[in-house]
Amino acid sequence: MSDITTKAINTIRVLAADTVAKANSGHPGAPMGMAPAAHVLFSQLKTNPKNPSWINRDRFILSNGHAVALLYVMLHLTGYPLSMDDLKAFRQLDSKTPGHPESITPGIDVTTGPLGQGISNAVGLAIAQANLAATYNKPNYTISDNYTFAFFGDGCMMEGVASEAMSLAGHLQLGNLIAFYDDNQISIDGATDIAFTEDVSKRLESYGWEIIHVPDADTNYDAIANAISKAKQSKNKPTCIKITTTIGFGSLNQGTSGVHGSPLKADDIAQLKEKFGFDPSKSFNVDQDVYDYYAQVAEHGEKANKERDILFDAYSQEYPEEAMELSRRLSGKLPDNWSKLLPTYTSQDKPLASRKMSEIVLGKLEQALPELLGGSADLTPSNLTRWPDAVDFQPPSTGLGNYSGRYIRYGVREHGMGAIMNGIAAYGANFKPYGGTFLNFVSYAAGAVRLSALSGHPVTWVATHDSIGLGEDGPTHQPIETLAHFRAIPNLMVWRPADGNEVSAAYKASFESTTTPSIIALTRQNLPQLENSSIEKALKGAYVIHETPNAKLIIAATGSEVSLAIDSAKELSNNGVPTSVVSIPDFFTFEQQSLDYKKSVFPDGIPVLSVEVMTSFGWDKYAHAHVSLDRFGASAPAPALFKKFGFTVENVVAKGKKTVEFYKDHEVISRLDAPF
Amino acid sequence: MSDITTKAINTIRVLAADTVAKANSGHPGAPMGMAPAAHVLFSQLKTNPKNPSWINRDRFILSNGHAVALLYVMLHLTGYPLSMDDLKAFRQLDSKTPGHPESITPGIDVTTGPLGQGISNAVGLAIAQANLAATYNKPNYTISDNYTFAFFGDGCMMEGVASEAMSLAGHLQLGNLIAFYDDNQISIDGATDIAFTEDVSKRLESYGWEIIHVPDADTNYDAIANAISKAKQSKNKPTCIKITTTIGFGSLNQGTSGVHGSPLKADDIAQLKEKFGFDPSKSFNVDQDVYDYYAQVAEHGEKANKERDILFDAYSQEYPEEAMELSRRLSGKLPDNWSKLLPTYTSQDKPLASRKMSEIVLGKLEQALPELLGGSADLTPSNLTRWPDAVDFQPPSTGLGNYSGRYIRYGVREHGMGAIMNGIAAYGANFKPYGGTFLNFVSYAAGAVRLSALSGHPVTWVATHDSIGLGEDGPTHQPIETLAHFRAIPNLMVWRPADGNEVSAAYKASFESTTTPSIIALTRQNLPQLENSSIEKALKGAYVIHETPNAKLIIAATGSEVSLAIDSAKELSNNGVPTSVVSIPDFFTFEQQSLDYKKSVFPDGIPVLSVEVMTSFGWDKYAHAHVSLDRFGASAPAPALFKKFGFTVENVVAKGKKTVEFYKDHEVISRLDAPF
Repeated sequence: MSDITTKAINTIRVLAADTVAKANSGHPGAPMGMAPAAHVLFSQLKTNPKNPSWINRDRFILSNGHAVALLYVMLHLTGYPLSMDDLKAFRQLDSKTPGHPESITPGIDVTTGPLGQGISNAVGLAIAQANLAATYNKPNYTISDNYTFAFFGDGCMMEGVASEAMSLAGHLQLGNLIAFYDDNQISIDGATDIAFTEDVSKRLESYGWEIIHVPDADTNYDAIANAISKAKQSKNKPTCIKITTTIGFGSLNQGTSGVHGSPLKADDIAQLKEKFGFDPSKSFNVDQDVYDYYAQVAEHGEKANKERDILFDAYSQEYPEEAMELSRRLSGKLPDNWSKLLPTYTSQDKPLASRKMSEIVLGKLEQALPELLGGSADLTPSNLTRWPDAVDFQPPSTGLGNYSGRYIRYGVREHGMGAIMNGIAAYGANFKPYGGTFLNFVSYAAGAVRLSALSGHPVTWVATHDSIGLGEDGPTHQPIETLAHFRAIPNLMVWRPADGNEVSAAYKASFESTTTPSIIALTRQNLPQLENSSIEKALKGAYVIHETPNAKLIIAATGSEVSLAIDSAKELSNNGVPTSVVSIPDFFTFEQQSLDYKKSVFPDGIPVLSVEVMTSFGWDKYAHAHVSLDRFGASAPAPALFKKFGFTVENVVAKGKKTVEFYKDHEVISRLDAPF
Repeated sequence: MSDITTKAINTIRVLAADTVAKANSGHPGAPMGMAPAAHVLFSQLKTNPKNPSWINRDRFILSNGHAVALLYVMLHLTGYPLSMDDLKAFRQLDSKTPGHPESITPGIDVTTGPLGQGISNAVGLAIAQANLAATYNKPNYTISDNYTFAFFGDGCMMEGVASEAMSLAGHLQLGNLIAFYDDNQISIDGATDIAFTEDVSKRLESYGWEIIHVPDADTNYDAIANAISKAKQSKNKPTCIKITTTIGFGSLNQGTSGVHGSPLKADDIAQLKEKFGFDPSKSFNVDQDVYDYYAQVAEHGEKANKERDILFDAYSQEYPEEAMELSRRLSGKLPDNWSKLLPTYTSQDKPLASRKMSEIVLGKLEQALPELLGGSADLTPSNLTRWPDAVDFQPPSTGLGNYSGRYIRYGVREHGMGAIMNGIAAYGANFKPYGGTFLNFVSYAAGAVRLSALSGHPVTWVATHDSIGLGEDGPTHQPIETLAHFRAIPNLMVWRPADGNEVSAAYKASFESTTTPSIIALTRQNLPQLENSSIEKALKGAYVIHETPNAKLIIAATGSEVSLAIDSAKELSNNGVPTSVVSIPDFFTFEQQSLDYKKSVFPDGIPVLSVEVMTSFGWDKYAHAHVSLDRFGASAPAPALFKKFGFTVENVVAKGKKTVEFYKDHEVISRLDAPF
């Protein structure tokens, strides 16, 4: 390769070292070691910095997110709106260059840093691309053919979430996925030998990946380029390019954990610059020929983008229907009137499990919403997440489906599923991923759920078997803390619908959302269709579902406990304690309402008793007393459990009376009243 | 093998089918398929049903816990106190035979069912055995040599937690671990081919495991026995015996997902019994010769136990010190006066990060408590979990440590670490496992943390970098919902100590606990040593740390916010608002106190303002208003973040004044007052 190659690579190394040193915080080692791979890859990456959201751009995910200085340097050099001043503001308040990659920065598609997530997101991005291509490509019209590239390190490889996602990627034969494994043999604790001696290549081969090894990736740039070419030929397997590198290449402490997470010292940076032929007195300096080189790269990307736009114009003539649908999806809008397809119910309709009502919703929507890309973590017959006649998303060669299929068999891989859904949502084209498992096992995916909320990926969890109502499987499967956990996460809807109308509302909110993910908690057992529920009311997050004049008590409940609350309220009212009931399908949505509305639901002067068959933790936000389950559940048929734990009209009535009795001598302040 | 072998195996199959059918709920398929392996293994398992807690018993873990009917049948047959009536009460309220294995049942060491956990617990059990043997065995005195056996299925293999733990088991060369992989090619969604086509044997080999395949494990009992013999020879590698079985062997629907999770129908059971030569009119029937066979097996175990007891008597003569220490550990008691070693501080002592104070505690205790078996998920220099001169728990051949070492290099495997710690704690011998990671990444291990609490394994998480105080790493690493999540789990201590005395208290409570796990949240940044703190007071869970006469406001805070609360209280008091401060290092412990004590901390008549740099979710339990962080954090130096988000004396004072202003016109009821 040419001199400019070496110069550009060393520029990346030095600029990354400067960036971390200026912040006096961060990770210089991996950027310096991976600079050759970054340069070679970004030199051929098909992106358009002037149009960062171009749908057919190649995706790049930095799964070892602590190496973010490398990514910022590459975005700066290739012409994204990230200035030298932004690099200088690395890890400072309100900068565009936070300590780990966040999707707020132009050119960054997913937030990474928590290890194992990024490579799993990459699997989702590759799935989305394969689905888009299989759905819209036509002979002579390759609308979609981008690759998804990722960098990952030993840390990602150790994390279980990556194991789940990479195994599935192999099964799915995702040839459009190319990942670089930075084999630098160093982790925070020291040499990886102290904890990580597995044969990574063999493991990935066992998953069905192609492996290419570049043993001298510090200096052999041609070998890296050849590896990428070869990887692009691997049409039926994802490829891992294992690059053996020296962490902190060029530093006096290269090859040690000392360069992993601490800035290089001034004298080390000076010798580094000198060694590479740069002026040690200059910081944050890029020579013009290096900028020029990357400007050419950006031009290629811009040209590719324009050519594809022209192709799409022709496609629109020949395939107007597909083009219109795709255009709509690219605009991020759902079809007009889609929500009219949502089923509604009256109290005359028969009781159904809310998981069943969820299945009905999906069945009604699937044709209108080609962006639905669903699945389950091996609980399809329990989650009821697959609409009739769905086609599985599978490699065509398996005979089990094809890539235009929209139902993913995730296997028992909840965390992988969560991270993959984030990747699917991040792809664009309005993809609406949803995934099923038992509510209790969404917790396995807590790391991914948190990132959905932080990054604003509007994914939907279909979380069935949402309480002791699942019965015999017992306490290992019965959520107690789960709703509290998720309600405590910012920017996350946690729906627990009480009947069919509320199920429809939950899906309406989830699929219309563009930046807030949802968990929809659904029952295994039947629920009656309630009087006075409606999609519109439920979309307020909480509403009075059973109103009694001059109420002395409000019972607030969710999901399967709302009908119990209404029965109890009727009994209380008959016993001289007029009682109203509030259904709260989603705390998050309720919090968005005006204080006036909220106070109309929980006014001053009336004590609130919550009834939810989970922990009371968090319920003091709205309620003055609780019928709750502040212990683990048990294994028995569901009716026996509800009785054992006091979820009966008798007990709720008794607790309601005690609540009224207690508060008759006290001022009752709505819990919504706050001093500030 | 003999006729009795076949008869016993078919008895297991039929009894498991009866058990599931009677409950009309459960999983008959795996028990019927794995019956041969269960029979062959239990025939040589070194256990003593009359002394289920014998320390040197072989351990057996059913990682595919849904196959629990198999385990109950085996415990019944081999003479554990589990009667035929108990089998008939399968999955019924308050029975000894819940829907998944729970450690409440004699003969069951760990609660399993959530997939991937059991096999990971098994790794912990094997680690504990290796450590115990290396610590106490002497020439001619093999005090410890038990094996850990596990059954696991495709579901476990798909879960990331198993990937983490099994990779580490290979690295650690745990030859005492023998796991049976039930290769039945069926999962809930159907054939495993739809989601799981990886080469499991190759993958496990890549981790460093020995693989033995028994392709005809439905009928080739000799091959299973030979495989176990061979596995026991594998001294430096864990072994996986891959048994290819037919799920639901003998059923009309054998080999399909139809037998996975639904009881067999009556006619199916009838033909099954007939096929196996049993009387179809009899249910829950075991012929005497089968009982007699297993009684012999139990006798062997009892004899082995007695011989080992005699050996230990001799050992006690020759190695009195070691014997005394081990006897103490087996009694489950800590050494007398151990807690006097805990450091105490006065307000004159210098500020330290609480992670540093945690390191000091561990350094003080490690010699006195040989049962400490610690580690970190590749964050040792950040968590400060390794005492000076600790020896790593490593295979001796690596030259990096040995099996008597007590510091485990877990790698970046939080979930695996959590599940392994559960296994170590379940081993007995008073093992006190602890593991370090950032607080935010304990969430990766949510599945294991929940099981620690449910099973009552007293493990300790050293959870550092516990807030935005970690600074530049940014929101991907900063906990917001994390404490709320864990506080909502029953039977879990969640300590957030404010200074050195509270750190000591947290460790005292954690290490003295026998049935409640702990998470100890610790800062990266320095904290001052507070006036009025003490170990004793902190052990109440909450206490008045700064008392002002005639207080009009109480500020309740935890960890790094307690000193801010005290500074703010002083300022408020100087400004005419007498203010006291309550430190709440652990909600769970506080809840155990008497109502009198609790009301002395939060009396009626004084509003409470909470100050914690996390979500306010859950704080309404104690406080009337909150200074909190109900959004994700940001990347910047910590002082800039505390300022940005209002964690300043100025803001707390302002909010304190507003709280008092608001409540001066209202009755203030302590949040501890409850109607029932």
